[in-house]
Parts: sequence; structure tokens; C-alpha cells
Amino acid sequence: MSQLSQFQCVACRGGEPTLSDAEIAELHPQVADWQVREVAGIPRLERVYKLKSYVDALAFTNRVGAIAEEQGHHPLIITEWGRVTVQWWSHKIKGLHKNDFIMAAKTDELMES
Amino acid sequence: MSQLSQFQCVACRGGEPTLSDAEIAELHPQVADWQVREVAGIPRLERVYKLKSYVDALAFTNRVGAIAEEQGHHPLIITEWGRVTVQWWSHKIKGLHKNDFIMAAKTDELMES
Repeated sequence: MSQLSQFQCVACRGGEPTLSDAEIAELHPQVADWQVREVAGIPRLERVYKLKSYVDALAFTNRVGAIAEEQGHHPLIITEWGRVTVQWWSHKIKGLHKNDFIMAAKTDELMES
Repeated sequence: MSQLSQFQCVACRGGEPTLSDAEIAELHPQVADWQVREVAGIPRLERVYKLKSYVDALAFTNRVGAIAEEQGHHPLIITEWGRVTVQWWSHKIKGLHKNDFIMAAKTDELMES
């Protein structure tokens, strides 16, 4: 269990700085299975999870959706047969915030539990 | 209610022909809000639905997932805050089958109901 997953999301307002490269490099090892991927110039954390069926994929999507609502921070989730892709980033600051790493760690815990 | 939505999916085996351009042109007006979009050279039917929240988006995703299981044909669904994108295509034949148009019409009915 990663330490990061024990944190809670904090309110992130527009205007807050995005994480620096050094901060990202420090946090990344705790969610090592996630890739930092740029989409339209904005970095996102992305991980693809393999599941056994469509029903299993949809069930995982719902579990991710539940922690998203609980924490007030919402990912993009792609649900396919046997596969769920999750992307976390902070829309308001158009980049990555510590919240995104916290949520990535919590998502990993959902899969492990 | 479109006529197309009354059909059921039929088993689609690899080797069956994909729809011709003329067949697509004939079916498309019944699901006029869907775009034919190529991804990696394979055409997909895609529609973006606007929802009021993340919870509403996830609920719609689940309704689409339920008809997918019922019909044995499974789409790619992108769930975001206030938005659900649905893509239908037939993996086995790497293209569009009448099943995809039937499912697009059934998806539209879910949103209308």
C-alpha cells in the first residue's frame, strides 16, 4: 500500500501552480505503473487495467467513479471489453496536481483490494 | 423511435463482410447524430452525449453497458464529468456491421427514455 493513497484530495482552485518536473519525479515512483501522457499539450496520468470481461471492466469503472465522487475529483475513464483506462489530471489548472497522484494511488488500491 | 432500434444483434463472425459505403449511407440517417470516425484505419460510430454531472454520466455508462451485455455486443465508452462518448464497431471484422447501427439506435433510445 502506497503512502500517497492515504492522503485526501484538497480543493484545487484555478491559478494554483501545476507540479514541477522535480515534484512529478518525486511522486511518480509511488504510482510507477502510471504513464505521464500529454493530450493536447496537457499532461495526464494514465494507466490501463486488464480485466476479465466487460462486466468486470464496468464494475471497476464504477468503483473508480465512486472514489471520484467521494473525493470530488473526477477522471476520464475508458471502458472496453476486458480493459479500463483511467486518466487523472486537474482541469482547473490544466495540468497535474498532487491530487492526481493521490487518486492514481487510490485507483491502484481499488484494483489490489 | 427509429425502426433500427427494434432489431436485435446477430452473431457476427470473423470473415463476414463489413458494410459497404452504400449500406452505411442507407443506415446513417436513422442514427444521424452519430459520426463515422476512423481510428487506426477502422471506422467506428461515435456519439458524444452531454450529461449534467459525473454521477449522471456514470449512470448512463451503466445503462449502455447493460444493453451491451444483453445484446452480446460491447462498445468503448468514455466517461467524463458531464459527458459520455460511445463508440460502436465490430472488432471481429475490423469495421462496421449492421449490429453497430442497431446498437447506436438503441443507445439513442436509452438517452431519450
